[in-house]
Amino acid sequence: MNIVRPTLVLNKTACLQNIELMAEKAKRHKLRFRPHFKTHQSIEIGRWFRNYDVEHITVSSVQMATYFASDGWQDITIAFPFNTHEINDLNKISANTKINIVVDNPKTIELIHNKIQHPLDVYIKVSTGYNRVGIASSSYSQIEKLLGAISEEPKLNFKGFISHAGHAYETTSRNEIQNVHFDAVLKLNRLKNYFIRRYPNLELSVGDTPSCSISEYFKGIDEIRPGNFIFNDLVQNNLGVCNIDDIAVRMHCPVISKQQDRNEVIIYGGAVHFSKDHIQNIDGKALYGRIILNTGDEKKLLNPKNYLIRLSQEHGIIRLTNKIFNKVEIGDIIEIIPAHSCLTASCMRGYITHKGEHIEMM
Amino acid sequence: MNIVRPTLVLNKTACLQNIELMAEKAKRHKLRFRPHFKTHQSIEIGRWFRNYDVEHITVSSVQMATYFASDGWQDITIAFPFNTHEINDLNKISANTKINIVVDNPKTIELIHNKIQHPLDVYIKVSTGYNRVGIASSSYSQIEKLLGAISEEPKLNFKGFISHAGHAYETTSRNEIQNVHFDAVLKLNRLKNYFIRRYPNLELSVGDTPSCSISEYFKGIDEIRPGNFIFNDLVQNNLGVCNIDDIAVRMHCPVISKQQDRNEVIIYGGAVHFSKDHIQNIDGKALYGRIILNTGDEKKLLNPKNYLIRLSQEHGIIRLTNKIFNKVEIGDIIEIIPAHSCLTASCMRGYITHKGEHIEMM
Repeated sequence: MNIVRPTLVLNKTACLQNIELMAEKAKRHKLRFRPHFKTHQSIEIGRWFRNYDVEHITVSSVQMATYFASDGWQDITIAFPFNTHEINDLNKISANTKINIVVDNPKTIELIHNKIQHPLDVYIKVSTGYNRVGIASSSYSQIEKLLGAISEEPKLNFKGFISHAGHAYETTSRNEIQNVHFDAVLKLNRLKNYFIRRYPNLELSVGDTPSCSISEYFKGIDEIRPGNFIFNDLVQNNLGVCNIDDIAVRMHCPVISKQQDRNEVIIYGGAVHFSKDHIQNIDGKALYGRIILNTGDEKKLLNPKNYLIRLSQEHGIIRLTNKIFNKVEIGDIIEIIPAHSCLTASCMRGYITHKGEHIEMM
Repeated sequence: MNIVRPTLVLNKTACLQNIELMAEKAKRHKLRFRPHFKTHQSIEIGRWFRNYDVEHITVSSVQMATYFASDGWQDITIAFPFNTHEINDLNKISANTKINIVVDNPKTIELIHNKIQHPLDVYIKVSTGYNRVGIASSSYSQIEKLLGAISEEPKLNFKGFISHAGHAYETTSRNEIQNVHFDAVLKLNRLKNYFIRRYPNLELSVGDTPSCSISEYFKGIDEIRPGNFIFNDLVQNNLGVCNIDDIAVRMHCPVISKQQDRNEVIIYGGAVHFSKDHIQNIDGKALYGRIILNTGDEKKLLNPKNYLIRLSQEHGIIRLTNKIFNKVEIGDIIEIIPAHSCLTASCMRGYITHKGEHIEMM
């Protein structure tokens, strides 16, 4: 592996372990495993899931659905409030692929009225507390209105309720994540119990990596849609969801400058490579990445006094303790665990494995 | 212009005006105008500069230099501490193109010793107070050491001092920007006066959009390298550097959900489109973009009570006042001025003009 410039290095072994763990959990709980492919956005990585009997996937856009449909995925949920401007593109894919869309407002249905060419399963997006999109799970009147709009479209089939407990990311302990998830499961089951007489096949779909990773409680749930778990990152590690060794992506960046008076090492690797997402460090400052140092034969995770503290467009500034600073030289390649692997992957648009294989993204 | 999904729309007229203004200022002050092309990263947009007699350009990477050299640019400064791992790629371009590199440490020279195949001009990067990379402009001993290392390489020619007053972005008024710039010019002139006897052709190169846009003081300076000015953005507007009408890029994003109880409109357009860069809003919160609303025939910039307040990977959450909220519908296309145009362009990797022409990026 010859690193010349900022490179996103993928640990395939760790990826496969992460997939296997989640696939086993899904089997154990009789859940359909419908992984979210927006994290990796790669046909090749998508294929790794097939060895774990995955046949259903989640994506976040019509374009991404088109991309994965081109590799033979036959059942794709676009887990994003449907963008009515893409109805023509949707009709093209849904001619040959089973597509499931998500809606949270009758207006969306109204805008695609008479434009839907092929049958679609429709999930109603509900919010169990994250409050980004979706109808509040307690708003039965809004849900009824939307069900009414769906029932009037002959090409639409109400499939069930879908939720994303994004507020699991706003927690500070595993107990809190369990709590967010438990609450979500209760709320969804309340909906299921209420509507199941009218819709005997209605399903419940949940999907955030923190909840799916640590919980063993999936009563009444039919499907899980985690995405980030395949790579994990500092966000997950910070939440207590994964160990550092479970993080399957690392940026490798050349050192281009050293600033002795500030104990700062500057790397070629900035906001266009990492994204500007960060977690909060123990000192209260933004942490964009944690540092792995090669000390002879051994790779060592440095404590959070040493971290990627600032990003310009192409520069990354790493603050180090005095002792570590003296071990780093211009020309060294530094390994960095990114704060948010999905966004870093989206910036980098490609991977290289430890064996030097290039993996392309959409 | 048919907007279907998040699209970066370029106002070519505003771009050309921005270029013309800066080109005229450079002529007025007898400065070489060497615009930074990392902002637009587009061969086509680069060509617009040729009408303003621009022959010298700045880029931030060897790859970007290669890209623009392929379109005939013959004098390119890579304004980034040279990444020694790319010496082979550099040798390829410098065979046919005049390339100027930037260094701030003798170690860089040591690492490319005997590997430089074609003559290169070298700028010493100095810091006038930004303290990201570069030798502090007062550290004569460090500069002497680096000059010594450069002089021992027959293929390297010391060209002058280069600085970037990035701390102009940390100011809160035009006066403060003037101050940062004036201080930088003084410090650079001190260096010039000291070294000019030994290096009679030595040049001074400065380059940040705030200083270059508002200052008329360039004593002793030979070259300016602003980049962002071609698009401008909310960062510049917030600093008092440009008017809203001088901002040449806008995101156009479809509305995909409305949340009445929170007066929030959700757009298709998230961190993978805007980047996570933001400015601080008047309420102290992060502002990722300001909103332009079509009210019949007129386009109106909404006050900052209405703004892009949160970004997930693909979702953008716009908080609106009650009155405005009721005017927006699912399916509408909303225009948003991004916080940081360079990073938004880098995420979007392409433009569309008002005439519907597609403009590609590297």
